Amino acid sequence: MTLPPGFAALPDPPYYAVIFSSLRNGEDEPGYAEAADRMLALAEQQPGYLGAETVRGSDGFGITVSYWASEAAISAWKHQADHAATRAHGRNHWYAHFELRVAKVERAYGKPTRG
Amino acid sequence: MTLPPGFAALPDPPYYAVIFSSLRNGEDEPGYAEAADRMLALAEQQPGYLGAETVRGSDGFGITVSYWASEAAISAWKHQADHAATRAHGRNHWYAHFELRVAKVERAYGKPTRG
Repeated sequence: MTLPPGFAALPDPPYYAVIFSSLRNGEDEPGYAEAADRMLALAEQQPGYLGAETVRGSDGFGITVSYWASEAAISAWKHQADHAATRAHGRNHWYAHFELRVAKVERAYGKPTRG
Repeated sequence: MTLPPGFAALPDPPYYAVIFSSLRNGEDEPGYAEAADRMLALAEQQPGYLGAETVRGSDGFGITVSYWASEAAISAWKHQADHAATRAHGRNHWYAHFELRVAKVERAYGKPTRG
């Protein structure tokens, strides 16, 4: 089926999720938005990238979950040079705080076709 | 340390994440908001509940990640009667679409204290 905008079309589990929660500091919105778009486009080219879902509220708190075929794919993305440099910049310039959690998705359900 | 608002203070992994992505249909906002608050308060009383992070954008797409100590804790919450009834109502009345993924968190990093 075709999913509504915003949802990642994923294969059946198992696969991996990188859950990135962040609070923007409100600074450099143009630079941040450009980098976010660029990183998403870059991730889509990575081997093992499955999809991502992202949302940020008006208070600056956001959650992005990216999905990957394997731990090796996550590791390769972590060490991709442009991503690593952008991440280092973001750590110091864009986020008041963030938390990152790596998880193995074991099962999944949707409305209505898989639920 | 004290985390900024929005972030869940969690123990070290392993623990479990329930990743709920949803698109609101725009209907019954008062009923939805009341139920969301009530379900969060109810979850906080469940054994094994560790915390949750939630955000919804102005386009109606949202991600809520709740964290649990064990698969058994997730199962107990799934079968909690008030939660089950509210979930069934929501499936038919509040969401244009949703996806739910259950994952085991294997590692976690934060800024700056754990990163």
